[in-house]
Amino acid sequence: MRQTMRFLSDNTASVCPEILAALSEANRDLMVAYGDDPWTGRLDEVLGELFGTESRAFAVATGTAANSLALATVTPPYGAIYCHPEAHIAVDECGAPGFFSGGAQLERIAGEQAKLTAEALAATLDAHSVSVHSVQPAAVSISQATELGTAYRPAEIAALSEVAHERGLHVHMDGARFANAVTYLGCHPGDVTWRAGVDVLSFGATKNGALGAEAVVFFNPGLVRDFELRRKRAGHLLSKSRFVSAQLLAYVESGVWRRNAHRANQLAQRIGGAAGNRLLHPVEANEVFVELGADRKASLRAAGFEFYDWGPPASGAARLVASWDQDERHVAALCAALAAL
Amino acid sequence: MRQTMRFLSDNTASVCPEILAALSEANRDLMVAYGDDPWTGRLDEVLGELFGTESRAFAVATGTAANSLALATVTPPYGAIYCHPEAHIAVDECGAPGFFSGGAQLERIAGEQAKLTAEALAATLDAHSVSVHSVQPAAVSISQATELGTAYRPAEIAALSEVAHERGLHVHMDGARFANAVTYLGCHPGDVTWRAGVDVLSFGATKNGALGAEAVVFFNPGLVRDFELRRKRAGHLLSKSRFVSAQLLAYVESGVWRRNAHRANQLAQRIGGAAGNRLLHPVEANEVFVELGADRKASLRAAGFEFYDWGPPASGAARLVASWDQDERHVAALCAALAAL
Amino acid sequence: MRQTMRFLSDNTASVCPEILAALSEANRDLMVAYGDDPWTGRLDEVLGELFGTESRAFAVATGTAANSLALATVTPPYGAIYCHPEAHIAVDECGAPGFFSGGAQLERIAGEQAKLTAEALAATLDAHSVSVHSVQPAAVSISQATELGTAYRPAEIAALSEVAHERGLHVHMDGARFANAVTYLGCHPGDVTWRAGVDVLSFGATKNGALGAEAVVFFNPGLVRDFELRRKRAGHLLSKSRFVSAQLLAYVESGVWRRNAHRANQLAQRIGGAAGNRLLHPVEANEVFVELGADRKASLRAAGFEFYDWGPPASGAARLVASWDQDERHVAALCAALAAL
Amino acid sequence: MRQTMRFLSDNTASVCPEILAALSEANRDLMVAYGDDPWTGRLDEVLGELFGTESRAFAVATGTAANSLALATVTPPYGAIYCHPEAHIAVDECGAPGFFSGGAQLERIAGEQAKLTAEALAATLDAHSVSVHSVQPAAVSISQATELGTAYRPAEIAALSEVAHERGLHVHMDGARFANAVTYLGCHPGDVTWRAGVDVLSFGATKNGALGAEAVVFFNPGLVRDFELRRKRAGHLLSKSRFVSAQLLAYVESGVWRRNAHRANQLAQRIGGAAGNRLLHPVEANEVFVELGADRKASLRAAGFEFYDWGPPASGAARLVASWDQDERHVAALCAALAAL
Repeated sequence: MRQTMRFLSDNTASVCPEILAALSEANRDLMVAYGDDPWTGRLDEVLGELFGTESRAFAVATGTAANSLALATVTPPYGAIYCHPEAHIAVDECGAPGFFSGGAQLERIAGEQAKLTAEALAATLDAHSVSVHSVQPAAVSISQATELGTAYRPAEIAALSEVAHERGLHVHMDGARFANAVTYLGCHPGDVTWRAGVDVLSFGATKNGALGAEAVVFFNPGLVRDFELRRKRAGHLLSKSRFVSAQLLAYVESGVWRRNAHRANQLAQRIGGAAGNRLLHPVEANEVFVELGADRKASLRAAGFEFYDWGPPASGAARLVASWDQDERHVAALCAALAAL
Repeated sequence: MRQTMRFLSDNTASVCPEILAALSEANRDLMVAYGDDPWTGRLDEVLGELFGTESRAFAVATGTAANSLALATVTPPYGAIYCHPEAHIAVDECGAPGFFSGGAQLERIAGEQAKLTAEALAATLDAHSVSVHSVQPAAVSISQATELGTAYRPAEIAALSEVAHERGLHVHMDGARFANAVTYLGCHPGDVTWRAGVDVLSFGATKNGALGAEAVVFFNPGLVRDFELRRKRAGHLLSKSRFVSAQLLAYVESGVWRRNAHRANQLAQRIGGAAGNRLLHPVEANEVFVELGADRKASLRAAGFEFYDWGPPASGAARLVASWDQDERHVAALCAALAAL
Repeated sequence: MRQTMRFLSDNTASVCPEILAALSEANRDLMVAYGDDPWTGRLDEVLGELFGTESRAFAVATGTAANSLALATVTPPYGAIYCHPEAHIAVDECGAPGFFSGGAQLERIAGEQAKLTAEALAATLDAHSVSVHSVQPAAVSISQATELGTAYRPAEIAALSEVAHERGLHVHMDGARFANAVTYLGCHPGDVTWRAGVDVLSFGATKNGALGAEAVVFFNPGLVRDFELRRKRAGHLLSKSRFVSAQLLAYVESGVWRRNAHRANQLAQRIGGAAGNRLLHPVEANEVFVELGADRKASLRAAGFEFYDWGPPASGAARLVASWDQDERHVAALCAALAAL
Repeated sequence: MRQTMRFLSDNTASVCPEILAALSEANRDLMVAYGDDPWTGRLDEVLGELFGTESRAFAVATGTAANSLALATVTPPYGAIYCHPEAHIAVDECGAPGFFSGGAQLERIAGEQAKLTAEALAATLDAHSVSVHSVQPAAVSISQATELGTAYRPAEIAALSEVAHERGLHVHMDGARFANAVTYLGCHPGDVTWRAGVDVLSFGATKNGALGAEAVVFFNPGLVRDFELRRKRAGHLLSKSRFVSAQLLAYVESGVWRRNAHRANQLAQRIGGAAGNRLLHPVEANEVFVELGADRKASLRAAGFEFYDWGPPASGAARLVASWDQDERHVAALCAALAAL
């Protein structure tokens, strides 16, 4: 019988044992709800320690919620949010930024490897005069790792932030795969966030081993403003908040954030190596983009591999994602299959 | 040392073993994300069986999300939603119905025991002419059990639904404590929902033993419309959806929905009995409302009991909630303390 | 042939000659658009003089726009706006406050003669605890004259404002019939606005002789905030803004604001006198509410009088509105008919 | 003394005599408000005759209102609206489409002369898979004349509409300068609208001689849906609606729509001729785009000519707009100045 080998997305991954254990451990006694529990009470401290700076951290269950709540907090309803055309917020969130902000407009800026550059941001801002007729530039949102599996270097982010801050924009980072980027870069989590000017981060844990937990981390406490009210009215304040906070604490304190990302990245490197010159982008995090053509995609699928087309189905591109819990044998099989193509 | 005995809310409760086990059991293999997993695939069937009718069920993590998404799906942005002044949607959701719907207006209708009556609904609708100047009556939302711990009888709901449907309104039920109401009434879940004309139900599990899981159940499949798009853009489509669906399946299939509610209700009956003539409302579900006065509240608190004031702090009313996992000794202590007042 | 005699609404009125002349006078040369014209440039000064204080004034074409833009500027999307159940914003604007604010919730407070009282406001605010779960009290909106044709006294407004300001709420006045109220009271326009604590006023001109012109007047310049951006994105910044500003200047500077209101009020007094003990409310501005019963309403209509039912058609109440340009003979005929009933 | 000669925008223009006369003529008697007047009652018929087909027409006072209300009526809050990057809705309306629709996302498609092509639209739609994660393609919006003063040919529009309709999108036309385009093309108004597949048109009159009047014209009556409720709750239903409808009737019935546009276009042709090879785009409607360089712009301004930079001030491009009422001597002076550069 043919076996299914999934390289669709790190959202297919299971929950890692450390986090499942934390849920069980938190499951004792009656606890005050809506954030007044001891786990939630430690979030600021534990994430502040991870990042090496004082910060405010708020737990939510999904990445779309984290991104949209962060952006809506720093963007007025008539604001503009600058992002890459491939950004998750632009392509994969069903218009959530517009919904949460009450109408803010996305402005796309193209760039290699799904990255914004400081130069392109400056040029875009220069080209549009701001008046009562225009949307008001409010935020830049970048993804770390990017949607094409690459990682911004600290200096790239710092340059972007400098342009943004000079002109009064805030910097948001969609860190759904933040651990993968930091692990690849071998840097301190602070190096690609607050030290590089990031104001607010969606710190993802779900894809990398949690059940459903993301933190919105404000490095600029002055920006927290009405975040908690926005979270509540969007239905994203969990009543039994201990369980989402406990996931985040375990994710950070046990070190699985780095261990899981490290394994996923290593697997992606092996897959990328096997793909050879079919690679479309450098493999930096845990995603591998390959040009295969329709026939080779079909034959991989026939062999039991699941993955998404990248771009229109008619194109030959495919995305292969390595999850933290990917079966070693599936990876070996995929590498062999890619090498044999 | 003084012990804390919490009667604040059923949101303080832990996760019941059956549901925690279901999470562990679901934690195997890589599974397709965003609802294409086998657990989510069984939701319609399992909830349909519970209710005894075909229905469509969608999982979300919070009650506010369930209520607001259900209401926004059946209410245009210029619509009116009729509810009791004590309704959770009116008082405890930070304006979520207005946010999700894009501006719909809440119209409150007073009533005994936090219930709407068919007569009051009809009178309210009669009193307001509908034109291009007015909001457009779109939905009625009732809570089962109510915010005052009482339960609508099937005939009460049917009468309300008849008035609503005659005039083109849809009927939503906030069932955050649905199991408590049904258990109290001793009826079939269908008797107070689709058989009584309810179009869409927020079927709560979180308060009654789940970690964070509610289902929006449409008994009128024609109303599902764009629910899934609304859920996604609100950040309420969980990527690892198996884990929220698995909670709901375990909740229903293991029978804990009824067992937990039964225990909580029984405890509330005991507390209510001990409160005697201080009771403000009949105890039907798992909430007990008592008139204590400021001094007696203070002395209960000094003895280690936690509970919320009901109404302004200066009033003498208190709300005591029995959770499914309430410690037997705490209940006994509370009953003794109430009797001794 | 039977003649139609309209007492439906002061919205049926024509444009008074002074204002029509002002439109013609402004119709020369090419003028910079969107507010950079000399007429708009004088708005602040002319309205500031009228009110006897520095203020910022912004022109729009409709009362709904004025009210909603004013309220949205001082109310966050999770805010609460307190108003009378009869308020135009609650009953006659198709949910506009919810739309413009992005979801703010209306909280109704009952009161005699369609007035809020300081006591009722304080009691309502006291009764609702504010937390992350609740909407956040943000604004009080009162109508001057009220929807029942009565006028708040300066002291009534000052008392309300005091309660509001103490608790951090802003005070908005819907002045669709502001001139009628001020004329009745015989007071200075400042007495019922900034001197009594009003923060922002919808200063109506349309009903009282303009073509389509209202000013949003901020007495508290710190509240102007993003008003101009909100006006623009709502499509309420007129390109040929000179023509709406010219109406407002003529309305104030020629004194027709007072002259027209005076005539309309006087006619209403005569009608009220003729109605005798059928009057439902004191006649203070230009509206007359009478209890007639279905038969008398039908016979008045048969005689050519047009007016609206007040409340459900089955009720016997009717509203008779005197416009600034009401035909003297129609008024005489109406008085005679009322007296003869 | 130096004279100011304005070529800033056709929004600087005055009201043409025919339309001012119509306002005076409508200014008699008390008329039922909010659209139940005889002028408004004739809109459908008069515009239907102009376009040669049955249609539904609704009056508003501004172009932003017309565009946004039209788009919000055919686009859900999670919808996508495709437009050119230069589109007025994308650049000059302060995010109005996002506001009115409740969050719809603008997707820009580049194209020569500020035009979308059928091919580019098809390619864009092909490149984005539609799922619950994406915004849902809902509408295409094109400007006629375009933001660069060019006019779509009937066949270009028909090809676009075919692509749009095949995929379930509706076609909106921003006709702020519709008369200029039709006059240039010498075609029937129906040829570039319903006969070419346009579903809903913002039919502009303000720039071309009205005081403040635009019509939203639905050629597909099935799309009118809740337009009137959306207009009301946005504050765009004028109480004294006779005055906006009377403008539109006079604009169409007197033929000034064509006469004014003809004159403005002719003046633009002269200016374009004088600009010679400095022209950046073909002159088709009443706008002239020229590459002048900073020094020549400064010297023109020193000579009394007012116009806008096009693009960033540092660029050398300028936009010169001919209004219907442009002074003949100013045009002659401008032509001479351009020729002398």
